[in-house]
Amino acid sequence: MTVPNAFVDPASVAVVGASEDRAKWGYWLADGALRGAGRRDVWLVNRSARPLFGERAFASLGELPAAPELVVLCVPADQVEPTVGEALALGCRAFLAITAGLTGRQQHRLAQLLKAAGAHLLGPNSLGLYDSSTDLQLAWGTFTPGSLAIVSQSGQLGMEIATLAAQAGLGVSRFYSVGNQLTVSAAELLESLAEDERTTTAVLYLEAFTEGPRIVAALRALRRAGKHTLVLSTGASEASRRLARSHTGSLTSALDVVDAACRVAGALRVATPQEAVAIATYLSSAAAPRGRRVAVVGDSGGQGGVAADVAARTGLEVPQFSPELQFRLRELLPEAAAVANPVDLAGAGEADLGVYAAVAEAVAASTEVDAVLLTGYLGCYGEDTPSIADAELAVVDRLGRLAASGPVPLVVHSMSGTSAAVARMGQHRIPTYPEITPALGALAGAAALGAATGRDPKATAGPELRPVTGYWGAREALRDLGIPVPDAVRVRDGAEVSAAFRTLHAPLVLKAGWLEHKSEHGGIRTGLTGPAEGTAAFAEMYQRLGPGEYVLEEQDTRADVVEMLIGARHDPCFGPTVAVGLGGVEAELWRDVRVELAPVDRPVAAAMVDGLRSRALLRGWRGRPPVHTDALVDAVVAASEAIAANPHLTDLEINPLRVGVDGVLAVDALILHESPKNDESSKNEENHA
Amino acid sequence: MTVPNAFVDPASVAVVGASEDRAKWGYWLADGALRGAGRRDVWLVNRSARPLFGERAFASLGELPAAPELVVLCVPADQVEPTVGEALALGCRAFLAITAGLTGRQQHRLAQLLKAAGAHLLGPNSLGLYDSSTDLQLAWGTFTPGSLAIVSQSGQLGMEIATLAAQAGLGVSRFYSVGNQLTVSAAELLESLAEDERTTTAVLYLEAFTEGPRIVAALRALRRAGKHTLVLSTGASEASRRLARSHTGSLTSALDVVDAACRVAGALRVATPQEAVAIATYLSSAAAPRGRRVAVVGDSGGQGGVAADVAARTGLEVPQFSPELQFRLRELLPEAAAVANPVDLAGAGEADLGVYAAVAEAVAASTEVDAVLLTGYLGCYGEDTPSIADAELAVVDRLGRLAASGPVPLVVHSMSGTSAAVARMGQHRIPTYPEITPALGALAGAAALGAATGRDPKATAGPELRPVTGYWGAREALRDLGIPVPDAVRVRDGAEVSAAFRTLHAPLVLKAGWLEHKSEHGGIRTGLTGPAEGTAAFAEMYQRLGPGEYVLEEQDTRADVVEMLIGARHDPCFGPTVAVGLGGVEAELWRDVRVELAPVDRPVAAAMVDGLRSRALLRGWRGRPPVHTDALVDAVVAASEAIAANPHLTDLEINPLRVGVDGVLAVDALILHESPKNDESSKNEENHA
Repeated sequence: MTVPNAFVDPASVAVVGASEDRAKWGYWLADGALRGAGRRDVWLVNRSARPLFGERAFASLGELPAAPELVVLCVPADQVEPTVGEALALGCRAFLAITAGLTGRQQHRLAQLLKAAGAHLLGPNSLGLYDSSTDLQLAWGTFTPGSLAIVSQSGQLGMEIATLAAQAGLGVSRFYSVGNQLTVSAAELLESLAEDERTTTAVLYLEAFTEGPRIVAALRALRRAGKHTLVLSTGASEASRRLARSHTGSLTSALDVVDAACRVAGALRVATPQEAVAIATYLSSAAAPRGRRVAVVGDSGGQGGVAADVAARTGLEVPQFSPELQFRLRELLPEAAAVANPVDLAGAGEADLGVYAAVAEAVAASTEVDAVLLTGYLGCYGEDTPSIADAELAVVDRLGRLAASGPVPLVVHSMSGTSAAVARMGQHRIPTYPEITPALGALAGAAALGAATGRDPKATAGPELRPVTGYWGAREALRDLGIPVPDAVRVRDGAEVSAAFRTLHAPLVLKAGWLEHKSEHGGIRTGLTGPAEGTAAFAEMYQRLGPGEYVLEEQDTRADVVEMLIGARHDPCFGPTVAVGLGGVEAELWRDVRVELAPVDRPVAAAMVDGLRSRALLRGWRGRPPVHTDALVDAVVAASEAIAANPHLTDLEINPLRVGVDGVLAVDALILHESPKNDESSKNEENHA
Repeated sequence: MTVPNAFVDPASVAVVGASEDRAKWGYWLADGALRGAGRRDVWLVNRSARPLFGERAFASLGELPAAPELVVLCVPADQVEPTVGEALALGCRAFLAITAGLTGRQQHRLAQLLKAAGAHLLGPNSLGLYDSSTDLQLAWGTFTPGSLAIVSQSGQLGMEIATLAAQAGLGVSRFYSVGNQLTVSAAELLESLAEDERTTTAVLYLEAFTEGPRIVAALRALRRAGKHTLVLSTGASEASRRLARSHTGSLTSALDVVDAACRVAGALRVATPQEAVAIATYLSSAAAPRGRRVAVVGDSGGQGGVAADVAARTGLEVPQFSPELQFRLRELLPEAAAVANPVDLAGAGEADLGVYAAVAEAVAASTEVDAVLLTGYLGCYGEDTPSIADAELAVVDRLGRLAASGPVPLVVHSMSGTSAAVARMGQHRIPTYPEITPALGALAGAAALGAATGRDPKATAGPELRPVTGYWGAREALRDLGIPVPDAVRVRDGAEVSAAFRTLHAPLVLKAGWLEHKSEHGGIRTGLTGPAEGTAAFAEMYQRLGPGEYVLEEQDTRADVVEMLIGARHDPCFGPTVAVGLGGVEAELWRDVRVELAPVDRPVAAAMVDGLRSRALLRGWRGRPPVHTDALVDAVVAASEAIAANPHLTDLEINPLRVGVDGVLAVDALILHESPKNDESSKNEENHA
């Protein structure tokens, strides 16, 4: 479904529950609706039928001259269903329900009523909607028209974003408070933004990604349309997850999967309204930088140092300049200046304001950085010393030309937020901030968006896996996927154990293959060097654990092995995912793991491995030889394709995957399917290493 | 030395280089000095001797009616020395030197001149000073009087702090831009603040802690005087360290040691001016919370969730409320509300504004949290709906009473920054912020200060260690400190190796004890089970490495051992330090280390261990038994006392210290002393694991 025109530019709007009492929603919705009276019919409905805002008010929808294209509901919860019923009978097909407090049962009945009539309702519990291009303001508060679109599951958080944006000089193109999404979802409203010409950046706030794949598709469509989206989401803390459950009844998606979804879509997750607004402010003026390297140019060593530290904290790089560039800067600056990056003008700016521009130009032209940050006093000169105000404006104009046609974007942190010079920077579309943290946060966010071009993780024609059980089944499945496992046999008695030592290379490992948590239950015996030791171990284990599918496997005795893990799962919101990380028994201690939506190709899998802290172990740690990372990458790709191509597969976990100099060996694995007999296992999955 | 009165309340000030040109420093200093003309004689000196600011100007210091108590220098660099010489001859003994650009040679000569005369100079390269209580304003810009003191090595960073503070409604008590600290140091200016009654909070910015112990003592004195100090420092990134070197010629202290110094002093390090100002704003109004537990109370689930995530990121806890407290809140709130923490009023506030106060009161009284954060719309009601403005102010008054007399502090994030209700919050001394990040950052900072009461790491009568060399010497030193080492003997030939197997328990380890990096050079052979194996290993190693102090040591074969490390060093700025962390070969990968100034007692050492991520390994990881953490703590204490009591000891490093169920064993150690023959070793220390 696409969003009906009724929510974009209705020919007529009726506000039911209109009021002149500013403390009531009916006031704000009526007041806002009337601002569009030049473009559409606006009818106010109130039981009292007393005139409102100097206009005639109607006692009921039935008295209106025609059926309104959009009906706004500001009535008590128990009046929603009767009012919608009356409106449907009149032919209305679109509703905005501000009313909160409907019970689950009331909402269920309402949904059925609407569905039967083919009607749409935004809300209930919506804080309203706004469209700057059609004079459609049906929300609490006032909006400044602009280029930022907001789609929010929390109306008030949406309002906070709009308020902070307005303070930063950034207006709103569209605002949708989606409330309980009874029939109109956040995903379809997001989709509609792709065609909105005024929107350059969107902010999406969701508590639950129940339509994950559709959200991803919408984000991708926005990106293709040249628009950036910032996804504000909570769930980084146990406390916010607790709140999400009690508030909406749905589990908040794990944030690392939300991040993965954003990467696929070319979008970016943010944690606060301020972060969103800082980045949106940047994007409204400048292009995303092509990389993370930033030059810090300041007129104070202290401010330059603070900026460098904040840059590092936000994931930007402040690379040391080449000797050539340092030489070039030396020519422009006094001896006391620092020229290695950060650049400290050391008073040169005071002597000649043009130095700011000259240094920025030299650095921008160097190809050694992807963006230039100016930090400090620039923007304050004219305010403090009117006689040099014009000279400062001339420098700002010169910086404006650099920003407009230079090779890299320019960002300014100015100690003045309000000077004429700062206003001039805005005219030149140079993103300018009164504090260093949002300045660099915006640059880092824009750089992340610039790098995240998105990708299309289409379900591949990956290998079809038949359902398997136990460790032996998992081994066979891995082999089918091309992931090496040690040679092994199944054994049922001592004779088979003895025989195995003739075909396999000792030392061997005996495993109780049907147990999920083998070591915890004494279901593993390693280092079996010969038949006598093997049969004794088998007898002992059999006596303890009874009959089952015992597996006797060659032990991986290679030196210089790094134990990693691979996990592939179906996320309840976003579908197939794959993770790679440090494995072994300390995996949960260090939590050094990267997740992406599956399937992934080799470059993405390689980037996942490269993003791990433990990549240093793979590359050869402290004199050890580098291990076969390519084989690890292949295994990640294979696991990702398996999870993507087999919907019945719920879990595929390899830990450890032993990565050695000559390749990988999966020496423990767990595969779970959606099937009645595995229900118990699926429930326990979180307890599994 | 205490700061001379001349820098606090001089009876007379002369500004040399005074000017009416606003683009010149001489303008700002003269203009500022004249503001104190009602309190002291202010004389302007300019070669031209033309009247300035409607006052008589003097051509030289010699023409003044008397020798000024403080001489302000706004003259070119090459005129500083002659001017100071003239002033000293007249009897002047205190100078503020704004002038920048003096060469090292010029500064050296100036220092000698001043020292010979017993005179003091603040600067050069100072941006000036300000004292709100004595009308002494000798700096660029204007200041708002208040309670925040600023001592800054970067004048402009100090100005940025003052500017941001003014924007937050926080004025300045004293401002010192210390410049190059030729004779007046940051430490002594900091000391002087302890007695300043108006100062409640100080911010110190330093690039180099060359007077580390004195700074720590000054911070402790401030804390004892009931004042908090925020230490702004850079060096978190390679780029800022690069800048500090080029800017001041001194190495920036490692930030973890700065943090340790702050903990000892009861101060707190911050990374940006905004962080400093947010915390100072809090401290100017409210007491530091007694712990890190915060209740989040909001009228939007979205804002509550964002707040909870930001709280977790800043190190605060948002604990789940007890069933009793949840029950109590349920009685106050509608069914849709969340009551577990965060609290989501779910519209109850709109229906009855008093609910905000009632919930805050219930939560504050619970003893389950150390602070209450209100986030969201409160503060905006009256602005949007004048008819309920009084009701909102009444709620704010009620919150004010809670803040004034309640058991825990209150912090507000309001979507309005400028409403009458927000102003009223300020009158009630409720810290109120327009964004959630600084609100919680301030609370977290204040909580850290509340917890950091400081301690006095006095040099103990610790054990005196005689200088030792090699591994054998290190072993003996550790044994003297009470840190267990395995039994061992020194061996010179095969016969001694064979004999050793009769007195020591195999397996044994052969070590080339004189090598610092034994494993890298093949200087270790483990698992020697008998005389034959032992003598062969010795012969092989001797052939390769030649004569030296070989050590044959019992190998630690205990199961369930965790490898930790202990490192004790003399920091060039702050003196003796001790570190404990995860040891073994992956120590540098995970960098899970805690550092404190030495010596530490058992509670501090235990807290260090408790702050490690790898504490989970010590407590018994995945079914393993807990190891003897008390013995680890004892070893940390012993190492800390050794480094504190032996100035000649530069490095004492144990890695690994094997911590088992029954105690610790140090199985490799390095001890370095300050002595000519160890110079090379000292230089290499950074390369050692």
